[in-house]
Amino acid sequence: MNNFDFYAPARIVFGRGTQNQIGELLKPHATKVLLHYGGGSIKRTGLYDQVVASLNKAGLKFVELGGVVPNPRLSLVREGIKLARAEKIDHILAVGGGSTIDSSKAIAMGIPYAGDVWDMYDKGLAIEEAVPVSVILTIPAAGSESSGDTVISNEETQRKYGYGSPKLRPVISVMNPELFFTLPKEQIGYGVADMMSHIFERYFTHTKNADLTDGLCETTLRTIILNAPKVLANPSDYDAWAEVGFAGTVAHNGLLGMGRDQDWACHGMEHELSAIYDVAHGGGLAVLTPAWMTYVYKENVGMFAQFATRVMGVEGSLRDLESVALEGIRRLRLFYEQMELPQTLRDLGIDEENLELMAKRATGAAFDKESPIGGMKKLAWQDVLNIYNLCK
Amino acid sequence: MNNFDFYAPARIVFGRGTQNQIGELLKPHATKVLLHYGGGSIKRTGLYDQVVASLNKAGLKFVELGGVVPNPRLSLVREGIKLARAEKIDHILAVGGGSTIDSSKAIAMGIPYAGDVWDMYDKGLAIEEAVPVSVILTIPAAGSESSGDTVISNEETQRKYGYGSPKLRPVISVMNPELFFTLPKEQIGYGVADMMSHIFERYFTHTKNADLTDGLCETTLRTIILNAPKVLANPSDYDAWAEVGFAGTVAHNGLLGMGRDQDWACHGMEHELSAIYDVAHGGGLAVLTPAWMTYVYKENVGMFAQFATRVMGVEGSLRDLESVALEGIRRLRLFYEQMELPQTLRDLGIDEENLELMAKRATGAAFDKESPIGGMKKLAWQDVLNIYNLCK
Repeated sequence: MNNFDFYAPARIVFGRGTQNQIGELLKPHATKVLLHYGGGSIKRTGLYDQVVASLNKAGLKFVELGGVVPNPRLSLVREGIKLARAEKIDHILAVGGGSTIDSSKAIAMGIPYAGDVWDMYDKGLAIEEAVPVSVILTIPAAGSESSGDTVISNEETQRKYGYGSPKLRPVISVMNPELFFTLPKEQIGYGVADMMSHIFERYFTHTKNADLTDGLCETTLRTIILNAPKVLANPSDYDAWAEVGFAGTVAHNGLLGMGRDQDWACHGMEHELSAIYDVAHGGGLAVLTPAWMTYVYKENVGMFAQFATRVMGVEGSLRDLESVALEGIRRLRLFYEQMELPQTLRDLGIDEENLELMAKRATGAAFDKESPIGGMKKLAWQDVLNIYNLCK
Repeated sequence: MNNFDFYAPARIVFGRGTQNQIGELLKPHATKVLLHYGGGSIKRTGLYDQVVASLNKAGLKFVELGGVVPNPRLSLVREGIKLARAEKIDHILAVGGGSTIDSSKAIAMGIPYAGDVWDMYDKGLAIEEAVPVSVILTIPAAGSESSGDTVISNEETQRKYGYGSPKLRPVISVMNPELFFTLPKEQIGYGVADMMSHIFERYFTHTKNADLTDGLCETTLRTIILNAPKVLANPSDYDAWAEVGFAGTVAHNGLLGMGRDQDWACHGMEHELSAIYDVAHGGGLAVLTPAWMTYVYKENVGMFAQFATRVMGVEGSLRDLESVALEGIRRLRLFYEQMELPQTLRDLGIDEENLELMAKRATGAAFDKESPIGGMKKLAWQDVLNIYNLCK
């Protein structure tokens, strides 16, 4: 086990009706709130009215900024920073999924920063402070409700970059599985692929003596695999949503990766798809992950055989780990298919035109600073291109 | 799944050499530290010198108070409060195991409280504030390094009471498994029994639809059961200690009990043993737990069969859940035996004299306010007496 530093202070307030507590919950932390959200769905479902009523009841002032889109844009972040400064906002409440939360975090660190907030994403500058962010989660997927991470797309340069700081961890995240009942069907699969990927990126490792986190990863994956088909079949299944939603938070609060070298190649490869083609992050991950596994499993056959056995329920012979490993990957593909996820780049509407460009961007080769991606198996741009080609 | 509120802000700094970072870690949080510890062991092992060197290097002032004993005493807590007030302490650093941490938390909440700190334990008063506490852990067992709980013994009245508040969660907890190498052999078993009990108290429940936390509990138990015999055989096995130590923290930071009704009868029954006989908490739990399981399993045969199957590796027929459940309990006894833990009250030096008194105290019947204990199976004082009798 590696040395590690675990810090996950986000308070998770979970369960039926919890969105109505938001005013009381924020009161000790806020005086004037920026209410940040996406399109009109929270108005259609009545959530917007519930949040406004709760804030009003607690005597909290607020201004609002809607319009967050998937793969959230730098332009709206800049608008939010300007608004928040003018209105003297001291807390940001994200009502939405990962895109809205990530946009909120970007605004939060941009407010006290004198330069342009893109500096943090582009140059990795450390931040001294950020306005606190809280969350009402409407899409279980990104895990941003418990993490200190944010991913923003710069639409001018077609770049999608991530940034992380402990100072960006939300203060309070409210999760009511009832709010997930109205999600469009494809969002269910995307969310599941995203949270599973957050576990895979931590799970596949050469680090030995990681029994506890191996097991935590595996049981969280099993929980998702057991319950996700239930919510797809019946989007009003509270109990199944509760498992999937809670698992999505546990998947990304950091715990499952403690003491392990992590990978993160699939996220790197996917960000390039989203940056150019604006595809759903979870859809991109569902296409890339089995291809990545097929490309790299020989690097660590024991790990993939363990995944196959403990997560995918493969009962093959441990005297033939390779066939066990391959059967595990095959079953993961079948699971994604069952979740009605895209299987190929073609399904995502991506042709061959930009594959090499994306491979070179993912590894920095396009910017003359090539650095292989992936913790378990280092991938050069040619490897990334090979994986993209496996996905055609 | 029940609604829940999860908040575990303690930062865990884990790994080799981490005790030498304590000065730098505390610097943003402290100016004058109360260094609180137990007997002379931290001086013998050189840990005391390392801590003092690190505090000095960071320019932190400190005063010290040693003398914490297992089942930590109210008298020392009162002395600590007096000292901390006089010295204007703004942070308490516990260097030790659960007893030292619990004593530190008691001092922390006693400092700003105008009355006697025992009021909190005795009357359950809510606290408004507490001086922050940080930890260097030397005994993995109590999980107090991540919890907001404290248990103190009032030696005048022979009462041992617990108290909990989010305000008592440590700020930073340093865990270096190398510090566990010199633990006396019996402490290994006690610690393991204690952390396993923290999981059992959360695990055994009637709450349905708790797949994720079922699985998190089970894999944490399996990790302990796999690695604890390794540290007993070789107390310098870093990797095995890392698993056991990390598991002890995960066992008690709250996560494993989220969304579930919890039990806690074994802890209640054990506190009475320790209060009168001053036995090691883990030793008492090792004796009581299998007896409690035998007494209550019929209440929830499926849960105990799941425990037997998933944790203890029983491969019996699911058409005979009862025999599967009983085999699981039998194997747990064998595991405790393998860990060289006491098996009976006699092994703990406890005879029949006070069994009824302890049963009545555990349930409040001795104080004319009887209230059954146990979340899964309610136990009246007669039930507790029956369980004590099973342990003779």
